[in-house]
Amino acid sequence: MHDGQTPVMDALVDFALGLELASLPPAVIEAASRSMTDWLGTAVRGAAEPLARALATVIGASGGSAQATVLGRGMRTSALNASLANGAQSHALDFDDTHLPSIVHGAASVAPVVLALGEWRHLSGSQALAAFVAGFEVETRLGRVLGRALADRGWHVTGVLGHFGAAAAAGKLLGLDAQRLRHALGIAGTQAAGLEQSFGTMSKPLHPGKAAMNGLLAALLAREGFTGPTAALDGPAGLGATFLGIADLSAAVQDLGKRFEILENSTKFYAACHLTHATIDAGRAIRARGGLALDAVDSVRCRVHPLVLKVAANPKPNTGLEAKFSVAYCAATALVRGEAGEAEFEDASFRDPAVARVMTRVKAEADASLGIAAAQMTVRLTDGHVLEERVTAARGTPDNLLTRDEVEAKFRRLAEVVLPVGRVASLVTALRGLADLPDVAEIAALAAG
Amino acid sequence: MHDGQTPVMDALVDFALGLELASLPPAVIEAASRSMTDWLGTAVRGAAEPLARALATVIGASGGSAQATVLGRGMRTSALNASLANGAQSHALDFDDTHLPSIVHGAASVAPVVLALGEWRHLSGSQALAAFVAGFEVETRLGRVLGRALADRGWHVTGVLGHFGAAAAAGKLLGLDAQRLRHALGIAGTQAAGLEQSFGTMSKPLHPGKAAMNGLLAALLAREGFTGPTAALDGPAGLGATFLGIADLSAAVQDLGKRFEILENSTKFYAACHLTHATIDAGRAIRARGGLALDAVDSVRCRVHPLVLKVAANPKPNTGLEAKFSVAYCAATALVRGEAGEAEFEDASFRDPAVARVMTRVKAEADASLGIAAAQMTVRLTDGHVLEERVTAARGTPDNLLTRDEVEAKFRRLAEVVLPVGRVASLVTALRGLADLPDVAEIAALAAG
Repeated sequence: MHDGQTPVMDALVDFALGLELASLPPAVIEAASRSMTDWLGTAVRGAAEPLARALATVIGASGGSAQATVLGRGMRTSALNASLANGAQSHALDFDDTHLPSIVHGAASVAPVVLALGEWRHLSGSQALAAFVAGFEVETRLGRVLGRALADRGWHVTGVLGHFGAAAAAGKLLGLDAQRLRHALGIAGTQAAGLEQSFGTMSKPLHPGKAAMNGLLAALLAREGFTGPTAALDGPAGLGATFLGIADLSAAVQDLGKRFEILENSTKFYAACHLTHATIDAGRAIRARGGLALDAVDSVRCRVHPLVLKVAANPKPNTGLEAKFSVAYCAATALVRGEAGEAEFEDASFRDPAVARVMTRVKAEADASLGIAAAQMTVRLTDGHVLEERVTAARGTPDNLLTRDEVEAKFRRLAEVVLPVGRVASLVTALRGLADLPDVAEIAALAAG
Repeated sequence: MHDGQTPVMDALVDFALGLELASLPPAVIEAASRSMTDWLGTAVRGAAEPLARALATVIGASGGSAQATVLGRGMRTSALNASLANGAQSHALDFDDTHLPSIVHGAASVAPVVLALGEWRHLSGSQALAAFVAGFEVETRLGRVLGRALADRGWHVTGVLGHFGAAAAAGKLLGLDAQRLRHALGIAGTQAAGLEQSFGTMSKPLHPGKAAMNGLLAALLAREGFTGPTAALDGPAGLGATFLGIADLSAAVQDLGKRFEILENSTKFYAACHLTHATIDAGRAIRARGGLALDAVDSVRCRVHPLVLKVAANPKPNTGLEAKFSVAYCAATALVRGEAGEAEFEDASFRDPAVARVMTRVKAEADASLGIAAAQMTVRLTDGHVLEERVTAARGTPDNLLTRDEVEAKFRRLAEVVLPVGRVASLVTALRGLADLPDVAEIAALAAG
């Protein structure tokens, strides 16, 4: 039953269904295309992780109609199963994009559904991009209002809110009318879940996979007349109220359709915690000037936003995973190797003695005057020379967007771990022309593995 | 990682894995057998509901290996899909059993998994019953501590806690070791969901179906080495803490293996709100004395627990669903028809003019001295005669258990809506000998439809 008392639900539904790619600002379309590209790289790369093997085994035994592809694993299964696997794979390395204001990994739950339905229904790239933007905006706008509170409470924001993004994208692609999309968002919302207690286990990346699958299931059921709580957003026992005791979500729909959250999306250029990226930028810039004799490094002083030291202060990481949360390691690897990609956080390269030596010279200090995406590095050499670099916006954050070349370079690096180089090159070309692609199934076929 | 700081998790895991049917008190085995029987009847009957059609359409298109049966719909699909459909079907009429102290519909999420795995793996009836008890105890014990608080907050207790029951039963049947079962319970817990906002929509019965599917998925993944939060129960960002801010769940495991929650399970004998059942009992008892001239009924005074008037006080219901929450209607139908089954709450019989006339004579009053399963009815006739009946424990509640004959009569009534009479009779026989049944697949085949 829809009682007309659901202004937030109504606004999001009208926005999602009304959105057309041709009417979007070019910057929004480009941001969506980059996000889809970046997501596909992480999802293909994730196929090589242990989590993907376990999921493929379970999905393989359960079976399913050959509707959609599990990326990088050469398996076709139902769109529901493919959404589960691809969503989990894309978040396996925590290397997918992040919408920092909402703390939502915006592509992780939406893109798998868009790709699976696109392949199954042979939809066009422009349909896929429009649905992607719709889903991305729905979940990140809810995250603007609820994200921080959800995280403080112990919820994984991407897992919880991804359900709404996935359902909105799926509902749009399935051609639901407004009332059925309201039901779909309700059915999705009543499945919303994801505990922070899962961080550090395979269940963290499982969350966006489950959100994708659950959101798609919600839209498929709603299409068949299945009913859900259409007041799941505004209602007295809905999302905000039940999870957090927050009843007023109206801020989520301010300037809807005028301001686009996807323009504030960040793309990870380095395979480490987002908060180390500005420091890595500074180290790479100093190294790029040339002539840095590593033996002559006497001290490396890193000034960072206070939160960085709360999250990423590990001075002596023992594993590659711990190194991702170590400003000292990140600073050293940037200065010594000039890179902070996947390779730098594997346990082997992580034991590079040159990096280890420089790491002992690093001292990180909090500086509240710096923004969260900013950092300053001062390298003092034994001969008294000082090399200094100030970064105001880390690479990949909204004020310092990656170029498309950089996004594609990251994509290649990740995808080539799993797919042949020629396939990866064809994918880059196909993704570059995504808005004009006649059939999304082409991309799935190239990325099948 | 298991750090040894999870006493509640550890106790539940040890209990679930150690439980053997042969060591259980006979009353526990009988309670489990009745609950499975009652559940199967509601799940078969649910196949005729619109919700089941929508689920079957979506599941049919998604496909799946022919592992397990969707009851009453003649469809075989994956155990995951069958668990989803059968769990939802069984709760479609809200006629399945309820463990009142935890507010958990105890069979709804556990039985579908037990049946699906039992069919797929050709497990014995005694294995199925043991796993059923394990799952039932896990979810209702958590519900003893968290159920009321979850409900007050706006969560659907059956949906949230059903995840743990389903995962425990599935993990036991899949032969997980203790550490993998910990992971399974963690993977299940991080999917736990279900909003009260869904009440009155098809998403309410969807909850136990999703809990069954998610719990089974968790156990299947854990078997493949997938990791989850093993501190999902005891941890600082686990179930109690994140959902409710309750950290201490230790009461959930008191007397574990000595006291069995399933002995406090209630079976619905009437197709109405549980709180009307004592009144219905009183009306039927008065009618059964014989000689009640309906035209001569002057007044019907019903004394009930105060909560009954809060939940089921509707004096003039307009639909069959509303009639389920009307003490006046329930009293009248008991006196006039002597029944309060499915038929009495269909819109047609609901318009019975004799019932309508008596209904206008009913007056319900709160009496705080009565228990929640108690009621008193006083019928005054126009000639001054008074007929009175006092019920201290409604039929189907723990102090007034249904006989097996009554459970089977309810089963027949429900199942015969969907299955041929001969099949239903064979099912009754098979279920009566469940503990000695060599292969659970026999039951699934009989109930396939």
